[in-house]
Amino acid sequence: MTRALDNDTFLRALLREPVDYTPVWLMRQAGRYLPEYCETRRRAGSFLQLCKNPALACEVTLQPLARYRLDAAILFSDILTVPDAMGLGLYFSEGEGPRFERPLREEDAIRKLRVPDPCGGLRYVMDAVAEIRRALAGSVPLIGFAGSPFTLACYMVEGGPDGEFARIKKMIYDRPDLIHRILSVNAEAVTAYLNAQIDSGAQAAMLFDTWGGCLSEAAYREFSLAYMRRVVGGLIREKDGRRVPSIVFTKGGGAWLEAIAACGCDAVGLDWTVDIGAARRRIGDRVALQGNLDPAALLASPEAIVRETRAVLDAFGPSDTGHVFNLGHGVSRFTPPDHVAALVDAVHEHSRREK
Amino acid sequence: MTRALDNDTFLRALLREPVDYTPVWLMRQAGRYLPEYCETRRRAGSFLQLCKNPALACEVTLQPLARYRLDAAILFSDILTVPDAMGLGLYFSEGEGPRFERPLREEDAIRKLRVPDPCGGLRYVMDAVAEIRRALAGSVPLIGFAGSPFTLACYMVEGGPDGEFARIKKMIYDRPDLIHRILSVNAEAVTAYLNAQIDSGAQAAMLFDTWGGCLSEAAYREFSLAYMRRVVGGLIREKDGRRVPSIVFTKGGGAWLEAIAACGCDAVGLDWTVDIGAARRRIGDRVALQGNLDPAALLASPEAIVRETRAVLDAFGPSDTGHVFNLGHGVSRFTPPDHVAALVDAVHEHSRREK
Repeated sequence: MTRALDNDTFLRALLREPVDYTPVWLMRQAGRYLPEYCETRRRAGSFLQLCKNPALACEVTLQPLARYRLDAAILFSDILTVPDAMGLGLYFSEGEGPRFERPLREEDAIRKLRVPDPCGGLRYVMDAVAEIRRALAGSVPLIGFAGSPFTLACYMVEGGPDGEFARIKKMIYDRPDLIHRILSVNAEAVTAYLNAQIDSGAQAAMLFDTWGGCLSEAAYREFSLAYMRRVVGGLIREKDGRRVPSIVFTKGGGAWLEAIAACGCDAVGLDWTVDIGAARRRIGDRVALQGNLDPAALLASPEAIVRETRAVLDAFGPSDTGHVFNLGHGVSRFTPPDHVAALVDAVHEHSRREK
Repeated sequence: MTRALDNDTFLRALLREPVDYTPVWLMRQAGRYLPEYCETRRRAGSFLQLCKNPALACEVTLQPLARYRLDAAILFSDILTVPDAMGLGLYFSEGEGPRFERPLREEDAIRKLRVPDPCGGLRYVMDAVAEIRRALAGSVPLIGFAGSPFTLACYMVEGGPDGEFARIKKMIYDRPDLIHRILSVNAEAVTAYLNAQIDSGAQAAMLFDTWGGCLSEAAYREFSLAYMRRVVGGLIREKDGRRVPSIVFTKGGGAWLEAIAACGCDAVGLDWTVDIGAARRRIGDRVALQGNLDPAALLASPEAIVRETRAVLDAFGPSDTGHVFNLGHGVSRFTPPDHVAALVDAVHEHSRREK
């Protein structure tokens, strides 16, 4: 486990140590835009069966790395494995996204909510992490991840898609005590889950706060950021003599970057609405930045992709570290696979030249 | 037309002239949460027929004013009347939102796009404005409105709901010349449309940029803000000896407030994710602010509504003008009508006390 990495550019950039070029990986880099992913998923039977089968999860995790010169792998999984292990009954209805059979709405059920053992019902995730880490054989680092306590709570309370988050917000305004109870359990569960991933081989940890941006600033600080701070503070900081960096990403959090940067994380993920140069001036002296090309740019021509990729690198500005290139959100399923190659190559070539 | 208003608090606050209390109106204050609205809409036959019938549009515009002590009325209409008048064939499919029969995707159709005569195919809107203004009889001011050039373009190019804006973004990256052509026509159309509303009796003008927040900062400036600046610069500034204030609202634009405040408008609308006190420190010396309670707060108990309403007023801070209270987005259809009364009364009472 302790052999040195062939390519540790990603980890070095997160810790703001000098690098030769800007490393790149992409949120949802293993996904439906890749025909080989669709093939493996078909074999698995469903998305959830794919997540729960360590051998197949390992297979799809490695697929984008076989195609592109990516600087990191990310565990193939879903943020909702944690509430599923809490007994809420995760399922996916075609075209509608995730749903829970038993959403969390009654005070009694909320009081009974318990932290799941990450090596019990979530054993399959740890097995996948270990298998991916072995398969990577020291080529690039493996990122573990989890949903933020608040984002998990959104799914747990709403139970299914609701653009307005009516149920959880009503609970926030009327019964903040119940929300705080859910968030406390979630924070403890996510901390244990990420630490188990690190113990199993994950070399960096990322928190996805997909829905924190639906809150007012005051509510964001109280119901999302405070619990991410708790998670980050509880993470294993070093493994096998090497620091394990953490990344916090709040979609729609562009106005709150200073507060996010102060939560204890090593890096802040940026969605595409933020100017990364402005973000660097605001918080670049404290954390690394990850992002932030508009995923929709990958639908355009390779020429446009190269132009827009360079624009993000140029906006970040000259530097020998502190930037991990990524999209501002996950790869769209409609992305032509060769467009991703154009992006990855443009990041490497343009950043080598500018350094 | 020139008789003085009984209550001009709203107009004075927008122009940052002293007021006795903080005025309030609500985006989508005439809507499905009101049973009397649902009744009138049933009589009209459909949402679109309601928009196109000046007598019924006037009736629903006045309904919330009969219930609540609101400080302004807003024309009941839809932002998509303009592209409808351009010949795109607006229709509403139940539960799916607006669609166009002939979305704008071919270069040839884009080249043929023309500015509609606001007193031709949009005559019904001007008739509604005049009728509402007469019916208001000087009680409170009437707000006219339009969609921003970019937001209209989103609907025109996508043709129907698409959360990712894949088509318009692909066009932005691959064919910016075509997008600029659409936006130029839209800006001219929206300017003429708002000026015709002002000529017909609207006493303030608001631009709704519902989708500008889906863009990167650079794209927002180039494809949304630049064209709103063009519209604002072309508006009638004075009518019947009184200034006609303009309000620009970009949902998700919290990171760009300084740029928005510099577009020539009198007031900037804020969604609920922005802290209004921080916004005031950033741009309050240049423009008035409108907003910004989370619409979901209206689903909570009246006690919580009063508390959250006061929190917004307190965040804005002590002042004798420059704040128009509103939600950060439209009233949800699930809002209990008496909750709106709690909000309106809390704004008036709390702001009178604090001044």
